[in-house]
Amino acid sequence: MKVTHAKLLAQVPLLTDLPTELLESLAKSCRFEQVNRGHVIIERHDTTRRFFFLLSGQVRMLDLNRQGQEIALAILDAPTHFGELAVIDSLPRSASVQATTRCEVASISPQDAEKLIYTVPQVSRKIMQNMATVIRNNNLHRQVLQQQSISNRLAAYLLGQLPKDIDPKETVCIRNLPIQYDLSILLGTTRESISRALTTLVDEGLVTKDGKNLYLNDIPGLYQLLEED
Amino acid sequence: MKVTHAKLLAQVPLLTDLPTELLESLAKSCRFEQVNRGHVIIERHDTTRRFFFLLSGQVRMLDLNRQGQEIALAILDAPTHFGELAVIDSLPRSASVQATTRCEVASISPQDAEKLIYTVPQVSRKIMQNMATVIRNNNLHRQVLQQQSISNRLAAYLLGQLPKDIDPKETVCIRNLPIQYDLSILLGTTRESISRALTTLVDEGLVTKDGKNLYLNDIPGLYQLLEED
Repeated sequence: MKVTHAKLLAQVPLLTDLPTELLESLAKSCRFEQVNRGHVIIERHDTTRRFFFLLSGQVRMLDLNRQGQEIALAILDAPTHFGELAVIDSLPRSASVQATTRCEVASISPQDAEKLIYTVPQVSRKIMQNMATVIRNNNLHRQVLQQQSISNRLAAYLLGQLPKDIDPKETVCIRNLPIQYDLSILLGTTRESISRALTTLVDEGLVTKDGKNLYLNDIPGLYQLLEED
Repeated sequence: MKVTHAKLLAQVPLLTDLPTELLESLAKSCRFEQVNRGHVIIERHDTTRRFFFLLSGQVRMLDLNRQGQEIALAILDAPTHFGELAVIDSLPRSASVQATTRCEVASISPQDAEKLIYTVPQVSRKIMQNMATVIRNNNLHRQVLQQQSISNRLAAYLLGQLPKDIDPKETVCIRNLPIQYDLSILLGTTRESISRALTTLVDEGLVTKDGKNLYLNDIPGLYQLLEED
């Protein structure tokens, strides 16, 4: 049973490459849970400091602005980890983490988390690399939010999701587009505005929607839009 | 001479508490430079990976948005460090770093930087704590940028600069306010708009300006402004 748990943990990128004995000992100190869609795993401002591994499912990280509106900081898909900020700086939780699907999570105590993060060199290095990615993505997202119109914010967000080195003359598919609610809180607006902005981009022939896939038909046209802002 | 250098390095928070021998060996591998105001220490997109200590002076970290306008990510005052992202993830520089005053900087090679960051436990820990602070501040700044009007963005920025646990009924002084150019690129707007926004806040009796100091006379009034956005 614990072997299965260790194998589950080994799929989390932060823990891949760890020696089997370390994974097995980590699995023994983990608390494993299934949570339903909508369940709040971490409450913003809480002083809890457990460290989490998302083994299956998807979560959103949520903050509130000063007007009490939810804003999404990120959407995370399994397998991944979350909750390291409070472990590292001992401050209250910076964001709420809510399951957007049924999720399987494992968590360890703050003491075990500190030991893992600070004393296992490949984990320290990956935590730093991961935080570097978060900082770089934040800088990109800041540019998205500086766009005045919502359809331009959406265009900037979509362009930010493109893989590197695509051919801008081709149609590119963005799979698993977040639902309109998540897009609205990622882009600092309402679901209605996202719906209108999406319709605008579709009407202008820039994108085509097909279920959870969105096709960008005219990448130069989307960039053009941003230059007109 | 090298002893003086080691003592200079010891003032950088990242390096405080390191054993004297380590500081002296670090000082030996450092390149020390004086740079003038306006000098670009790191160019965005460069693939250089040196790690820097700012021993005196002030720098701004700059990004460009898709329209080619400069946006400031942060203003850093000595003593501090910068340039760790490229050391950690080996990607091109995420931002330019430009001296806003005459600065004294020390830098080490990528190899020495990796050794320092990954193999000295108290440095690893402080790098992680520092990155955690950057991530938390980015989340706050995101809320500032979601404000539609520039005077509200300025109000949100100023409230974000307040020390914790102040008495909101008192007047609070913000010392060393960044110059209007830096405020404009921090808040995603023009210098003229910052000037007008500042005049608006002064005319409404919310703030008073005195040289490089800005007095917040009415903190509840500034919060009120944000709720009306």
